Amino acid sequence: MSARVLSPGELEAALRQIGAERYHSNHPLHKLMYQGKLNRGQLQAWALNRYYYQARIPAKDATLIARLPTPDLRRAWRKRLHDHDGDGPETGGIERWLRLTDGLGLDRDYVISTRGLLPITRFAVDAYIGLVRDRSILEGIASCLTELFSPAIISERVGGMLRNYDFITEDTLAYFKPRLDQAPEDAEFALAYVKEHARTEEQQEAVLAVLRAKCDILWAMLDALHIAYVEPRMIPPGAFVPAD
Amino acid sequence: MSARVLSPGELEAALRQIGAERYHSNHPLHKLMYQGKLNRGQLQAWALNRYYYQARIPAKDATLIARLPTPDLRRAWRKRLHDHDGDGPETGGIERWLRLTDGLGLDRDYVISTRGLLPITRFAVDAYIGLVRDRSILEGIASCLTELFSPAIISERVGGMLRNYDFITEDTLAYFKPRLDQAPEDAEFALAYVKEHARTEEQQEAVLAVLRAKCDILWAMLDALHIAYVEPRMIPPGAFVPAD
Repeated sequence: MSARVLSPGELEAALRQIGAERYHSNHPLHKLMYQGKLNRGQLQAWALNRYYYQARIPAKDATLIARLPTPDLRRAWRKRLHDHDGDGPETGGIERWLRLTDGLGLDRDYVISTRGLLPITRFAVDAYIGLVRDRSILEGIASCLTELFSPAIISERVGGMLRNYDFITEDTLAYFKPRLDQAPEDAEFALAYVKEHARTEEQQEAVLAVLRAKCDILWAMLDALHIAYVEPRMIPPGAFVPAD
Repeated sequence: MSARVLSPGELEAALRQIGAERYHSNHPLHKLMYQGKLNRGQLQAWALNRYYYQARIPAKDATLIARLPTPDLRRAWRKRLHDHDGDGPETGGIERWLRLTDGLGLDRDYVISTRGLLPITRFAVDAYIGLVRDRSILEGIASCLTELFSPAIISERVGGMLRNYDFITEDTLAYFKPRLDQAPEDAEFALAYVKEHARTEEQQEAVLAVLRAKCDILWAMLDALHIAYVEPRMIPPGAFVPAD
């Protein structure tokens, strides 16, 4: 970072640069996934571990809502609770993620129990909630800016998985389609907030740092899967063991 | 408490007994209020201090939502965020409370700033958020059971205030009318949850204790107002000073 205050446009460019360098679309496991190079057991492990991330998103968002000072801000953020928890039984993002784990042949109760989780997945996701709980509200809001980069990774993942795995259907991947609209809306709100409120060098540094930290969290989740299920295939004691 | 597990019906009766003995409908200040024995400045002080309670309710509810384990429970509790923050600008319970402070002639920015708050109000309200953050989820849910008793106090307050203060109109009291439907719905959900989940003697003791603690919080808020603005009229340094 240069020792001066960035313009809002420069700040946005710096945030996008972090995504270009550090978002988990660059992780080898993502590439193996969309290129059709994983087997069903490896995809199961991914969906099972990523379930914990999905399931904790409302806790993350409610943790931030509890800190937001005005009804306007809380209402804007509340949309995320609706997106993930839905508006009735068997709706919402968490439920759609369970259709993915169902479609991959995992037992729903086992998935929900998180008994087979890799410990690193738990540490990383809990660290995300910790960011939103313990850092400034500005940083809490900025931590979701990975949503700026998610439409690209979702398109790559969904396209590649439908093409390359005959056991994966559009219905199995129902989670991802609404995210193509939800994530840009959410990211737009957060980006506008961050560009307006990160006005000092210190605030801008904090915002860039928290986006790096969030990218580290997503990256660590794929690292953990890679180590356990791809190479060198060291599954930690107690973690999910694929049948194939 | 007798040293045995209560039936759900006995538990409900014990909870209602706490309300009969400890709810702030028994506080002398409430009686003075609905009997028309307060002046405008005293009502201003009440509305100003109670604003902080209203304004922090979404923080309390989001704090609990962040801890609730399932989309079903979170959706049920999310209703409260809608009730208080509304579904658009200038809707919701906090906004309606500000119509009361407006109607009583208080400056809105001053109210929202909470600069004139009695310190005890802040301690008591923050203690409520602390309950919901630090005790068990069961106790967090049970802490809202004062809503069982609120329709009676609201009817008494609204009826008495309209009758006895010529500067108070139905529009000024717009906050209270929706609460007559919202509070019983919310209380019914919470009561059913508590009756189902408080099954051991220890859990039942905890649930009864947290309802007592919540009643203490509401009572302390009226105590603080009474001391400062009614008798012996000792307004702490920095707190709101009525013009009349």
